Amino acid sequence: VAEFEVTMKSLYAIGVDLGGTNLRVGVIRDDGHVEADAAVPVGTEKSADRIASLIGEHVALMQNQTSLPLTGCGCGIPGIVDSDRGIVFNSPNFPDWQDVPILKLLEKSITLPLLIDNDANMFALAELLFGAGKGRHNLIMLTLGSGIGGGIVIDGKVFHGDRGFAGEVGHIVVEPDGVPCGCKSHGCWEQYAAGRAFTHLVHRLPKHEREAVLAEVYGDANQLSPELIASLAGRGNTIAKELWRSYGRYLGIGIASLINVLGITTIVIGGGIARSWDYFIDACRAEIMSRTYHKNVVQLKLLPASLGENTGIVGAASAMFQRRP
Amino acid sequence: VAEFEVTMKSLYAIGVDLGGTNLRVGVIRDDGHVEADAAVPVGTEKSADRIASLIGEHVALMQNQTSLPLTGCGCGIPGIVDSDRGIVFNSPNFPDWQDVPILKLLEKSITLPLLIDNDANMFALAELLFGAGKGRHNLIMLTLGSGIGGGIVIDGKVFHGDRGFAGEVGHIVVEPDGVPCGCKSHGCWEQYAAGRAFTHLVHRLPKHEREAVLAEVYGDANQLSPELIASLAGRGNTIAKELWRSYGRYLGIGIASLINVLGITTIVIGGGIARSWDYFIDACRAEIMSRTYHKNVVQLKLLPASLGENTGIVGAASAMFQRRP
Repeated sequence: VAEFEVTMKSLYAIGVDLGGTNLRVGVIRDDGHVEADAAVPVGTEKSADRIASLIGEHVALMQNQTSLPLTGCGCGIPGIVDSDRGIVFNSPNFPDWQDVPILKLLEKSITLPLLIDNDANMFALAELLFGAGKGRHNLIMLTLGSGIGGGIVIDGKVFHGDRGFAGEVGHIVVEPDGVPCGCKSHGCWEQYAAGRAFTHLVHRLPKHEREAVLAEVYGDANQLSPELIASLAGRGNTIAKELWRSYGRYLGIGIASLINVLGITTIVIGGGIARSWDYFIDACRAEIMSRTYHKNVVQLKLLPASLGENTGIVGAASAMFQRRP
Repeated sequence: VAEFEVTMKSLYAIGVDLGGTNLRVGVIRDDGHVEADAAVPVGTEKSADRIASLIGEHVALMQNQTSLPLTGCGCGIPGIVDSDRGIVFNSPNFPDWQDVPILKLLEKSITLPLLIDNDANMFALAELLFGAGKGRHNLIMLTLGSGIGGGIVIDGKVFHGDRGFAGEVGHIVVEPDGVPCGCKSHGCWEQYAAGRAFTHLVHRLPKHEREAVLAEVYGDANQLSPELIASLAGRGNTIAKELWRSYGRYLGIGIASLINVLGITTIVIGGGIARSWDYFIDACRAEIMSRTYHKNVVQLKLLPASLGENTGIVGAASAMFQRRP
């Protein structure tokens, strides 16, 4: 009987994070360490063929620049993704994409083992393994941007549902007769707790308060971005602070529903709006506590995302590490 | 080398379904077949000790009446159950139960391997394995009674969340400023799509229609049970039919949120209110279709529960079969 010397070798994979504006590519070690990374603008020509070539080109550049052995390449893509079949059903950032067989397009130029998934799922996985949710088994990740990106991790793995539509949490119904949503429904959570929230919430203010806020943007409610309201609040404007509390209440209403459905109490929150954390988090937490079982939410963790701009590439590579046999 | 003759032997387990009124106990084969079953009234003395003794007594009777080898005993219990730790946090049917270590109490009189879980979870498992959801991997089961019981099955197993609170779907928020709920929140789904739905929905009718319906119950909205409205609808009352369509819309709103979160499109619906299926299902389906991604819900299955009064004992025994090593 021979004796073996066991050496724990690190694994490496390429992670790709496709955004509407930038493409990020990196080489990631299996402990989440970023060995190398780069970002390039996506540009204006956004056909699936062009984007697939762009990704292929930058994955090849990354491969050529590293001597590390690569397990494969994981790609995070904004939109609804059927990871198993390699298809993007649609994408808010690439409106022309409908049922795009993106995996096949990528395989034309990438020879490494490949996988794709929704970008929010990649964020969720990265935060569970190496970020705010480290050490947990289950996690809900919310990315607050123009919409609400959702990723659900169960027992350490991204949960996809029947065919990739799990985690479309932005379309939880929070107002049955509410404002229209881009998804053709109305009253969706992301109308009240993402980029367009304040354009709606301002109408609930008393008239004189509403007029005071609208005066800041020359009367156009559509200009009431989270950035503007954060800036106003930062200057001590009490109406802006009250608007952020309304925002927090709606954020909490949706999170309460998620907790009641999933029984998961680790909630990681990222995206641009999360920068205004202190303005909304108390109202959000209070709303959650009043709408969930006390014995469950005594263990509530509302955590800001912690991995920053590399979350997407780390998550994408991690999905690849998980898939390898 | 010896040759083995392989015989596929059936397994058997005892299934227990504790309700607020009746206790059902049965011997179940691992293909879902009910070998024997019995029901006894729970009685008025509902302390955890007394109920545990009652269950123990009837499990022993069942054991004595069968010569089949028993793998164990699964118990479905109404309420929020931490299956891993064997604790019932609380129960709508047994209001005095708070953090009851029911597994320990049961072990005093039951010597078989034991497990407990929420009854709605047991229903969900039974319907997936042997009922309306047969052949599927994922399923959402809704039991429409005084509240909305929820069970989520993922990859063939009941999903519990972090500590047993998954599937409390009755407390999805559907009306942020809605009516109070017994859970101390307000605007919960089960206020609008379970036993008390019509006592609220009647107030949305035009005055003359509302008065016409209330005249049937001598002016008391609290008397507007689903049974009464079904009976009125059955006699051709158009206002009652419209109330059922309102009910269906609210049922659909909550189901749409579940589908957007979980990406699961097999929905099995049971409970007393499901008997009024034809009065609400079209409005329910239309609401779901308008609030979810078309490419997802083309595969929507809204199915009536199919296992009847034995669902609970079949599911409870099935959970036992799944647990055995």
